Amino acid sequence: MNLNIELKNSRLEQAAVEARRGEAQQALAKLFSGQLDFTGWVKDPLRYDEAKIKALTDTAAEIRAKCDYFIVLGVGGSFMGAKAVIDMLPEEDGTKVLFAGYNFSGRYLKELMKTIEGREIAICVISKSGSTTETLSAYGIFKEIMLEKYGKEETAKRTYVVTETRSNYLFDQASEEGCTIFDLAVDIGGRYSVLTPVGLLPIAVAGIDIGAMLRGAAALASQETFAGTGLDYAITRQLLSGQGKKTEIFEFFDPYLAYFGEWLKQLFGESEGKDGKGIFPVSLMFSRDLHSMGQFLQQGTPLFFETFLTVDEPADDVAIPDTAMPPFAGKTIQQINECAEKGVLDAHVAAGTPVVSIRVPRLDATTTGQLIYWFEMQCAVSGLLSGVDPFNQPGVEAYKKEMRGYINKL
Amino acid sequence: MNLNIELKNSRLEQAAVEARRGEAQQALAKLFSGQLDFTGWVKDPLRYDEAKIKALTDTAAEIRAKCDYFIVLGVGGSFMGAKAVIDMLPEEDGTKVLFAGYNFSGRYLKELMKTIEGREIAICVISKSGSTTETLSAYGIFKEIMLEKYGKEETAKRTYVVTETRSNYLFDQASEEGCTIFDLAVDIGGRYSVLTPVGLLPIAVAGIDIGAMLRGAAALASQETFAGTGLDYAITRQLLSGQGKKTEIFEFFDPYLAYFGEWLKQLFGESEGKDGKGIFPVSLMFSRDLHSMGQFLQQGTPLFFETFLTVDEPADDVAIPDTAMPPFAGKTIQQINECAEKGVLDAHVAAGTPVVSIRVPRLDATTTGQLIYWFEMQCAVSGLLSGVDPFNQPGVEAYKKEMRGYINKL
Repeated sequence: MNLNIELKNSRLEQAAVEARRGEAQQALAKLFSGQLDFTGWVKDPLRYDEAKIKALTDTAAEIRAKCDYFIVLGVGGSFMGAKAVIDMLPEEDGTKVLFAGYNFSGRYLKELMKTIEGREIAICVISKSGSTTETLSAYGIFKEIMLEKYGKEETAKRTYVVTETRSNYLFDQASEEGCTIFDLAVDIGGRYSVLTPVGLLPIAVAGIDIGAMLRGAAALASQETFAGTGLDYAITRQLLSGQGKKTEIFEFFDPYLAYFGEWLKQLFGESEGKDGKGIFPVSLMFSRDLHSMGQFLQQGTPLFFETFLTVDEPADDVAIPDTAMPPFAGKTIQQINECAEKGVLDAHVAAGTPVVSIRVPRLDATTTGQLIYWFEMQCAVSGLLSGVDPFNQPGVEAYKKEMRGYINKL
Repeated sequence: MNLNIELKNSRLEQAAVEARRGEAQQALAKLFSGQLDFTGWVKDPLRYDEAKIKALTDTAAEIRAKCDYFIVLGVGGSFMGAKAVIDMLPEEDGTKVLFAGYNFSGRYLKELMKTIEGREIAICVISKSGSTTETLSAYGIFKEIMLEKYGKEETAKRTYVVTETRSNYLFDQASEEGCTIFDLAVDIGGRYSVLTPVGLLPIAVAGIDIGAMLRGAAALASQETFAGTGLDYAITRQLLSGQGKKTEIFEFFDPYLAYFGEWLKQLFGESEGKDGKGIFPVSLMFSRDLHSMGQFLQQGTPLFFETFLTVDEPADDVAIPDTAMPPFAGKTIQQINECAEKGVLDAHVAAGTPVVSIRVPRLDATTTGQLIYWFEMQCAVSGLLSGVDPFNQPGVEAYKKEMRGYINKL
């Protein structure tokens, strides 16, 4: 595995971690057993043979050949993973992937319309239920734009849909109109779906090697990967939570990991935040946020632990000229970044904060697939250790019910 | 005042709030007395006469006339407020304001260099101390680019500096080279500086009416504004914190408020997070994050309270065609947004979460100036009520010291 995980200053007795390894392995075995609902993602990367990958990459090539912009309409698990990966990995020139249908902002939609005006486009409508409010509202809007521009037949050819292959508003309409439909497996929930067509189609359109991502994930998809100390991160989280550290701060030293932070927040927050339980997930972007939240991290209410995700080899580097201010002159931006990483780690450990350090040698398609799968597994085990069902989300219905009540009164 | 503040379901005894009003008014009086260090911001908006505003807007006009891009180099309080305001208010066509010097990312710098290639630029270097690592490293890099493009004399003409008018690396160099220097008042800290040239110059270059912003703030700059119930927000925060609600979640229903959330996080986090105290500030963007953190908010560990910031009249709206999915068909995006706001409020209040609701009639220069000043005042009073000094940041030195140790060893 290409990830280097180290728990620093967890201030936990080693014996306490060891004491829960048996329980964690039992949870892992349960996940691999296929007995639990919504655990299709556990073995799904192993199911991607060359033919299945080719079907996606061929579609992506067809889209790249005919479009300037590929507009993904989706919210939550239907877009965050794809956006995270496309942000993390330098995009190929050519078709640009844009996202909409994840907010209710007229200004956002108008600015997007201005961007795509006079350009070739296709859309990708992603909704597990086939009736998500944000996504289906946006679909209605973009469909009209496409009908006017391309007519009925070509609009259908430029509309790609990812949903469950069973009757729902989106599936029925897309089937009738002859749009291309990719199946979202019934046994995979939105927040665990980035390594399915939900994430893979947009990611492939961005020119990223989805085969490498899937092979990276598949290489981890066995119980052996997580044997021994392999679930200590999940165990440590729960032990820290038991000691009152009810907030986990994911910290990155690369601004292109911002949406990976958002993806992690959904993964952990939605999996664990139920039954009055859960570790509140937060993400910060360093060095930016050292100048805003650094004071709190050093001396504020000690209710949190920190999880660093750092990258050894950056995608790019820039030399600071000799004429710049000493002592930065003559160094590179990445050298300074590494000094900041080490300095922050030292200072926060000295302040008594538990810090988990996760290092990746570089960000590429393979390591990104691994990171995604590794976090999904840790999250699922962590949730099971805390006694919740990490695959349901009963609480999200509450506001939707109220919202629909108001909409029906309009 | 144009803000409508309502405390819903705070689950606090009204008497408990009233009991602390005297103390809050004393804190307010102290802030207006000028006795405390770093309280220059309290009366600063009143000091902006037409001449002072004109000096800034004339400089902005000069920059707009000669530049495609105005690159602001600054971190923390030296850029977050300006970025927040420029994101919030639709930018004028013309010169575009970009930000750098707030991270150590080679990829970010390279992409920025590609954007500005062959275009006319000017830079704005903002650093209170005149030696901030991120900012001064980036300055070294962009200065070389400008020297090559424009030569020495023109580079100085295209370099605008905001720093304290006293000897420091940046001030000394800028003075020697003849750059335009704006003074950052010694008695105003970074996180309270958006209504000084730190924020006002970039905001004016973006074509936003800084006079209206300042008049909006100045209209609130008196003790009378905050008399009576005027500090109940600050009081409520402290009472909720005393009941174990140690996290405040700022929530927005407009994606263009994301950086205003970052600005709030610095304002509150850095002002209050010290001496082992402080309310951990978090921001979420709805409806996006209803699909990621909504589950946790509804049913997770109840360690937080929520502060909604909503806007009555959006900047823009889009009709959802009649052909879209019912019941959204024939409505507008803003109508649905309002239903989401009301639905979420109902659902979270029903879940027992304390919710503070702050409504703004619309986002324009005036209300933005008011929002900034109002939050600054509430934050300062809240910090004083909690017994900390809201104007220092002793903890941020810790990692800088360690970082500099590593840099010196390079």
